[in-house]
Amino acid sequence: MSVAELFNPRSIALVGATDKSGWSVSTLANLRTHGFPGPVHLVNPRGGVVHGSPAYRSLADIPEPVDLAYVMVPTAAVLGVLRDGAKLGIRSYVILTAGFGESGEEGARLEAEVAAFAAENSLTVLGPNGNGYINAAAGITPYGLPIPQPLLRGAVGVVLQSGALASSVLAFAQARNVGVSLLTSMGNETVVSVTDVIDYLVDDPATKVVALFLETIRNPREFSRVARRALEAGKPVVALKIGRSRLASHTAQAHTGALVGDDDVIDAALRQLGVIRVRSLEDLIITAGLLASTGPLPGPRIGVVTPSGGASEIIADRAEDEGLELPPFAPETVARLSEIVPSFGTVQNPLDVTGYVLIDRTLMGRALEVVTADPGIDAVMLLSEPPRVAPPDPAPALALYSASARRIAESPVPVVVVSNVLTDVTEFGRRVQQETGFPYVAGGIEHGMHAIGAAVRWSRARERVPARSSDVPPVDVAVPSGARGVWAEHRAAALLASAGLPVVPSELVHDEDAAVAAAGRFGYPVVLKVAAEGLGHKSDLGGVRLGLGGAEEVRRAYRSLAGTVPSMAGALVQPQRTGGVELLVGVVRDPAWGLTLAVGLGGVWVEALRDTALRVLPVDAADVRTALSELRGAALLDGVRGGEPADLDAVAGTVARIAALAAALGDDLLALEVNPLLVTGSRVEALDALVTWKE
Amino acid sequence: MSVAELFNPRSIALVGATDKSGWSVSTLANLRTHGFPGPVHLVNPRGGVVHGSPAYRSLADIPEPVDLAYVMVPTAAVLGVLRDGAKLGIRSYVILTAGFGESGEEGARLEAEVAAFAAENSLTVLGPNGNGYINAAAGITPYGLPIPQPLLRGAVGVVLQSGALASSVLAFAQARNVGVSLLTSMGNETVVSVTDVIDYLVDDPATKVVALFLETIRNPREFSRVARRALEAGKPVVALKIGRSRLASHTAQAHTGALVGDDDVIDAALRQLGVIRVRSLEDLIITAGLLASTGPLPGPRIGVVTPSGGASEIIADRAEDEGLELPPFAPETVARLSEIVPSFGTVQNPLDVTGYVLIDRTLMGRALEVVTADPGIDAVMLLSEPPRVAPPDPAPALALYSASARRIAESPVPVVVVSNVLTDVTEFGRRVQQETGFPYVAGGIEHGMHAIGAAVRWSRARERVPARSSDVPPVDVAVPSGARGVWAEHRAAALLASAGLPVVPSELVHDEDAAVAAAGRFGYPVVLKVAAEGLGHKSDLGGVRLGLGGAEEVRRAYRSLAGTVPSMAGALVQPQRTGGVELLVGVVRDPAWGLTLAVGLGGVWVEALRDTALRVLPVDAADVRTALSELRGAALLDGVRGGEPADLDAVAGTVARIAALAAALGDDLLALEVNPLLVTGSRVEALDALVTWKE
Repeated sequence: MSVAELFNPRSIALVGATDKSGWSVSTLANLRTHGFPGPVHLVNPRGGVVHGSPAYRSLADIPEPVDLAYVMVPTAAVLGVLRDGAKLGIRSYVILTAGFGESGEEGARLEAEVAAFAAENSLTVLGPNGNGYINAAAGITPYGLPIPQPLLRGAVGVVLQSGALASSVLAFAQARNVGVSLLTSMGNETVVSVTDVIDYLVDDPATKVVALFLETIRNPREFSRVARRALEAGKPVVALKIGRSRLASHTAQAHTGALVGDDDVIDAALRQLGVIRVRSLEDLIITAGLLASTGPLPGPRIGVVTPSGGASEIIADRAEDEGLELPPFAPETVARLSEIVPSFGTVQNPLDVTGYVLIDRTLMGRALEVVTADPGIDAVMLLSEPPRVAPPDPAPALALYSASARRIAESPVPVVVVSNVLTDVTEFGRRVQQETGFPYVAGGIEHGMHAIGAAVRWSRARERVPARSSDVPPVDVAVPSGARGVWAEHRAAALLASAGLPVVPSELVHDEDAAVAAAGRFGYPVVLKVAAEGLGHKSDLGGVRLGLGGAEEVRRAYRSLAGTVPSMAGALVQPQRTGGVELLVGVVRDPAWGLTLAVGLGGVWVEALRDTALRVLPVDAADVRTALSELRGAALLDGVRGGEPADLDAVAGTVARIAALAAALGDDLLALEVNPLLVTGSRVEALDALVTWKE
Repeated sequence: MSVAELFNPRSIALVGATDKSGWSVSTLANLRTHGFPGPVHLVNPRGGVVHGSPAYRSLADIPEPVDLAYVMVPTAAVLGVLRDGAKLGIRSYVILTAGFGESGEEGARLEAEVAAFAAENSLTVLGPNGNGYINAAAGITPYGLPIPQPLLRGAVGVVLQSGALASSVLAFAQARNVGVSLLTSMGNETVVSVTDVIDYLVDDPATKVVALFLETIRNPREFSRVARRALEAGKPVVALKIGRSRLASHTAQAHTGALVGDDDVIDAALRQLGVIRVRSLEDLIITAGLLASTGPLPGPRIGVVTPSGGASEIIADRAEDEGLELPPFAPETVARLSEIVPSFGTVQNPLDVTGYVLIDRTLMGRALEVVTADPGIDAVMLLSEPPRVAPPDPAPALALYSASARRIAESPVPVVVVSNVLTDVTEFGRRVQQETGFPYVAGGIEHGMHAIGAAVRWSRARERVPARSSDVPPVDVAVPSGARGVWAEHRAAALLASAGLPVVPSELVHDEDAAVAAAGRFGYPVVLKVAAEGLGHKSDLGGVRLGLGGAEEVRRAYRSLAGTVPSMAGALVQPQRTGGVELLVGVVRDPAWGLTLAVGLGGVWVEALRDTALRVLPVDAADVRTALSELRGAALLDGVRGGEPADLDAVAGTVARIAALAAALGDDLLALEVNPLLVTGSRVEALDALVTWKE
């Protein structure tokens, strides 16, 4: 299977071409309008004249070789077309026809037949139930809906798991003057998948940025592979992944399960892979367009040049939201700007050069040149845009924007141009950009600041390639064979200890006397916990007694536990720990992404706030440190009200090792949870643990 | 002063008119283009011909009465123009000239003179340092910058504390096909203020919605008054208030001070007043346009009709963000839709009628009619928009949109039309809307969902008019005269108790024996707290001893306190309370908005999360209940892990009474803080208090 061939045919046959079908009409018009240089053959079983040209009755009647069959026949006839084509050596297919897996059992059966036939015959099939694709870079447009004029060629490759939104994305990209290299509407992904297309785009020299609209990530492993490739190739991937609102939990038994929704895992995975997740179609295209135009932004320190105080303050607000810094200008920058900005203006970052720009049109350009030379900034944001309406004499405007374009091109740091509000780049605006080289304009402060923030975060993600399994030291542990169901604390803790993890000392006792004897060995106060197989949340069931100060208290507690939990098989005696910060460390198996680590602070932080940071495995200690820093309660680890600050390296090392242990325990492990992991300075100790295996 | 006269002159003089000034050129062109019916006189001290017409040398030379003088003379000459005008009986002025308060001391002095002269002579002055205004409803446009064509008349009144952004706002409103009633660029607000204009717009029959761009709220009392008037008149106020990122704290002494930033107070005040706060210019206009088109949305249950599964899922995600509900359709709705939607589609909310709309153009309209009749929804969102480009024969498109417009007009519930992405309404789109009555289109799912959410929240805010001082029962308390500085717990608690608030029993003692005697009266365990004037955070200073179980412990604690706090004047003995939930209740004086209540949960919630809800006073118990429900940790009040649920009415009543007490304590009060207020079921008790007075 070769998607490169699919996207670069030299000849195309439209099978099922008919004057009655809007898709047929549009496809042919698209191929003719947008410059497909090769022959387009029409096939209709009835022959005759279609779209004003004679049609062949079958693929076999075409006297020339066909590279791509574009299939619009009824559902039941699709497989026959593939058979005919395969015989003739046609390797690439776009199937528009619907009525397959999306429409019920019978359709799913037909789709499976298509998949099997394609696999046997090494056919490359896009669809069914898609719109086709637009290879704008090569002028090849086998696409079934009208393409908004003009089709702009550029560096953004777009992959959509939606047919209906493709037209909106094209229209919006055009309104932003963002050119596309390739756009594909995937359909059912029976053969060619989103990841196949991403793989192609990573290698495609015309593509600098990949923009995705995703309803589902069908194959997380493959997605991870291509996302890594894109990151390593320096091609940002921007994704609008929908389904945020559908929360689902995996393993009800482990505490962590309820904390980890499907979308939380996807969100963590995308972040780890350096994929920029956006939440709107506008941000998808505006962010992709910005990255295609400027490339990576080296850091978060932004110098801002505007002609407006009001806009400067909106930008300051949004910069804070996006984690961007607007540092004060260096003294030499201030000195030089003071000579340029009118005396009633204030020289500061963000810079308002004042409404005097209406009188002195060179003001912004001169200020820009000074700010780009400031030694303390990583990039400059320039608030500007081409005019919407052509003036009677466009020459002065063109000269002005040419001068700006030259300054931007010569700037030592990237310059991002942002407009005040998100309105279309008009026809004259596009002309100004084309004729003067004035760069991409991110549409509006709101979306523009988001795009700058995303570009900075992506550039940072690029510096740290996500951990691979081979980066994580393996854990040497005897994997229990045939383990099933829930392992309560005494067995779970033993497993942790066997892997070299620090676990609070503990004795399993079966009567009061043994409990008192164990307590004596540990020293008072002690804790008594019920031991019973299959028991999850001991404390919710009243199965824990804390702070027992003497023998009589231990005896009473033992009896009381036995009364509370009838299935009690014995009790664990442990020394009582005080102080420190409690962490929850859970590893759960996500059905799609596999083992996923959740780490959070104990108590209300997890219970009421769901304040956890997630990472899909593998993770190393550095990943865990970053995850800990993302917690809203992270400050507690630094020591609150005189508490000892946690040794974050020690914590991260232990958490990473818990994750590695989970990975070593094999496919039967559903969840491994340490709750709490007590942190007191550099002392890190598991006080309780729970392991859940497949039933 | 009459702003109605200012905005409705019958004749205008342009003072300082000159061919050399772009402002002069634009203003005259605007008045001529947009239909000002009255005479426009040009005044230039040199006389001669200006803009092709003869100019008068002074206002006095004009032979007719002048209603409005539009002033563009140099800064130093402005006062002279006002003097000339006042003599002639001209009552209204727009001053474009800059160089006043915004440019330093000398300018501020000139501005004060203008203000004084205007006050003495009852002149109405807009500016200085603004662009003028556009009364689109009346076709009166004394405005100094080019107005994008066409100027659309409509129901949104726009007030801007920015000159430079006015053009962007106009351009964006035009791109959204949102018409304006009045737009004013305020300048320095020397005489006419933002609130004066809002007041006018509340009474203006052409205005249905007020849109504000605010850099500062100069007079919170006046702003509150006009915002209430707008709420009572059913005219939504939408505001982009910038300066979110500037956090400042008021009273360092009280714990609450550090928790309450300037912008937090503004945010609370705007919410209390029913003002819709947005964060972008796009949301400002899109939200205002929606409310001007649909009016209030009666509830959060939205039925959604789309032609796209992908868009449906984006909408579902965004609905969750905005607190909107997408309830399942009623059985009869499902039955009727099943007859309309193709068999391969799924009948659910949000509804995807499928790409079959491309074949059957009536599909969306028929589905819309069914969904609007569903008994369980409050409003319908229709994903649609007029075509961007005129087809060769526009008649079928116009007929289609006419049919839709009719269905929408006849719908029993409001129908909000939203487009997929935020692109301009094109010229043809505008024509379709004008000719068919097809309604306002909120631009793009992202901003459209935000606007629907805001409209629902506003409609809810309307139902509850904010409390007035007269709604709050007064607190009868002897206001201490001449109180200064910090009152520590024993005096603060006595003040609370004197106002009838529940305070933990307490005895102030001055030696060990008295401490032990008091402890005996309360019963053990007790708490000992240092008593010393001017001492704030006792526990941070080691001034508290908890859980003292007997006489000897009390003695030791007393001595230890005396050693820790050398300034100790005595100690408070109190019974030790256990269990319950701790609240922080603080009332601080915001320099702009006055007394502001902050309520939050104790401990980490306040310290690490700053989880507080704010309300500007006055507040009643119902306000406090709402505030408590906004806390992230609100669930703790419902009882966590077997804890007793708090009696929220009792809590709210006590907190409202603390607020009322603060209000009764007069202008010298800076802060009154109860921390903690312990809540155990229906028992509510202040365990500690602090009062800060002006120095």
